[in-house]
Amino acid sequence: MTEFTDVLGRSAIAVERVLDDLLPKDDRPEARLMDAMRHATLGGGKRIRPFMVLSSARLFNVAETCALRAAAAVEMVHCYSLVHDDLPAMDDDELRRGQPTCHVAFDEATAILAGDALVTRAFEVLADPATHSDPAVRCDLVAELSRAIGADGMVGGQMLDLVAEQHALEMPEVTRLQRMKTGMLIAFACESGAILGKAADPVRHALHAYAHDLGLAFQIADDLLDVEGDEKEVGKKTGKDQGAGKATFVSLMGVERARGQARMLTDQAIQHLDLFAEKADPLRDLARFVIERRT
Amino acid sequence: MTEFTDVLGRSAIAVERVLDDLLPKDDRPEARLMDAMRHATLGGGKRIRPFMVLSSARLFNVAETCALRAAAAVEMVHCYSLVHDDLPAMDDDELRRGQPTCHVAFDEATAILAGDALVTRAFEVLADPATHSDPAVRCDLVAELSRAIGADGMVGGQMLDLVAEQHALEMPEVTRLQRMKTGMLIAFACESGAILGKAADPVRHALHAYAHDLGLAFQIADDLLDVEGDEKEVGKKTGKDQGAGKATFVSLMGVERARGQARMLTDQAIQHLDLFAEKADPLRDLARFVIERRT
Repeated sequence: MTEFTDVLGRSAIAVERVLDDLLPKDDRPEARLMDAMRHATLGGGKRIRPFMVLSSARLFNVAETCALRAAAAVEMVHCYSLVHDDLPAMDDDELRRGQPTCHVAFDEATAILAGDALVTRAFEVLADPATHSDPAVRCDLVAELSRAIGADGMVGGQMLDLVAEQHALEMPEVTRLQRMKTGMLIAFACESGAILGKAADPVRHALHAYAHDLGLAFQIADDLLDVEGDEKEVGKKTGKDQGAGKATFVSLMGVERARGQARMLTDQAIQHLDLFAEKADPLRDLARFVIERRT
Repeated sequence: MTEFTDVLGRSAIAVERVLDDLLPKDDRPEARLMDAMRHATLGGGKRIRPFMVLSSARLFNVAETCALRAAAAVEMVHCYSLVHDDLPAMDDDELRRGQPTCHVAFDEATAILAGDALVTRAFEVLADPATHSDPAVRCDLVAELSRAIGADGMVGGQMLDLVAEQHALEMPEVTRLQRMKTGMLIAFACESGAILGKAADPVRHALHAYAHDLGLAFQIADDLLDVEGDEKEVGKKTGKDQGAGKATFVSLMGVERARGQARMLTDQAIQHLDLFAEKADPLRDLARFVIERRT
């Protein structure tokens, strides 16, 4: 795993550089907005979703410069979702990646706008010819991302999460919630390489199936960290779900069964990669890393 | 003008129908999100931006079904911006189009998410093949819209507006703020017909120039309504800018000079339409309507 952590770390540095380029500092009167966007996006995070984009793109020999732009767009969307989720009206979090959250470092209005501008910038980046020479590919990226993060995807999942505070959810509902809230963006990250590489449908479906299982394993691992993780190490508040009385995979299954389920899902995810042979090793390593991570 | 009000009204009904289709009611547990999106979007508004899309599309004989989808996407973006601008952390407005604002009718978290899902849906609609058969056109729409409403456009303008509360702005700054905050989406609305119709650059530029002047005239008319309008007629709180001590075109120029300036800009806007001959009459009528409207 140490070797993989290095691989992931190098990838994160490359992604950081592209994000820094795509969100350039300015000194205009509205600079506070870009400062907030940069605060929310730069200087932290394992960049797991961008790694998915880059690793899936390599399966199809997509040019690295193109893949890095798509990876940056996915990370911008992830960061926008965190900024809005952290707002006082939502989860009211003050700590993220060991730093004050956007509305704490700036203010609520700026945080709302920074999130808005980040998701918009993500679509702008994807639609730009620099991301792919074929407009059909760029359009496909925009269409799939918007589906993954809209009312039937990530934002709908966040709504479900809020609704869930009033109802006790059962396992199928928790599964659906998590697939929408975190799984669909992860699926897009894994499939975007296939879109960039104009891969045939069966190949795309294999990556989707991988992402589907990995996304749930990822969420279970996150729930486990919330219960067992150390706040300083994790870089955000832990014990939150329990405190809020939220139904999670861990609260419904218990720690041991949840850990077993995450392992099973990871094995299943890895099996979907068989058709890529050793070219998919980074995605296999990622799957193992996800359930073993301590932060 | 009465005749034009009828034309605008018929157009608004057609747009309403498409919005209703594109934002379908559902009965899933997260239905509250779609309810809030529909509350924010349906049942009101003159639909001036969609009218711009439809009228510019007609100049190039674009199929009405395509133009209506682009028009609906623009209106979704406009409504998303209103939902977020009305939030307590921003302008803290309780009334919009004579109805309670989204966070009043629902709650803050739902309003934030409804705005997020609306802007995402707008991009999804534009990227959908039903909007245009040519992916290059769809990509162009996404690219231009994202530029118009991101950190260098609408959202940047909103940030400027917040920053302006701490500084007294002069005329060039107010002009820049308004161009970003409202002008760029109006410009996109007017240009989108040309994009859909694959019009040559000089033609596109003529529409851009029209929108540029009209956007400012529109804003001055809005400032005048804030000073002179009747709250019940206008359907939102008036006298706000003055109360907040905000620099507006009216506060900087006075009512009479502002009205003269709006008229001058409208004449200028209309002149840019000469190359379209009588085909552009709806856009000319719109320009005249914008500065004469009482609501």
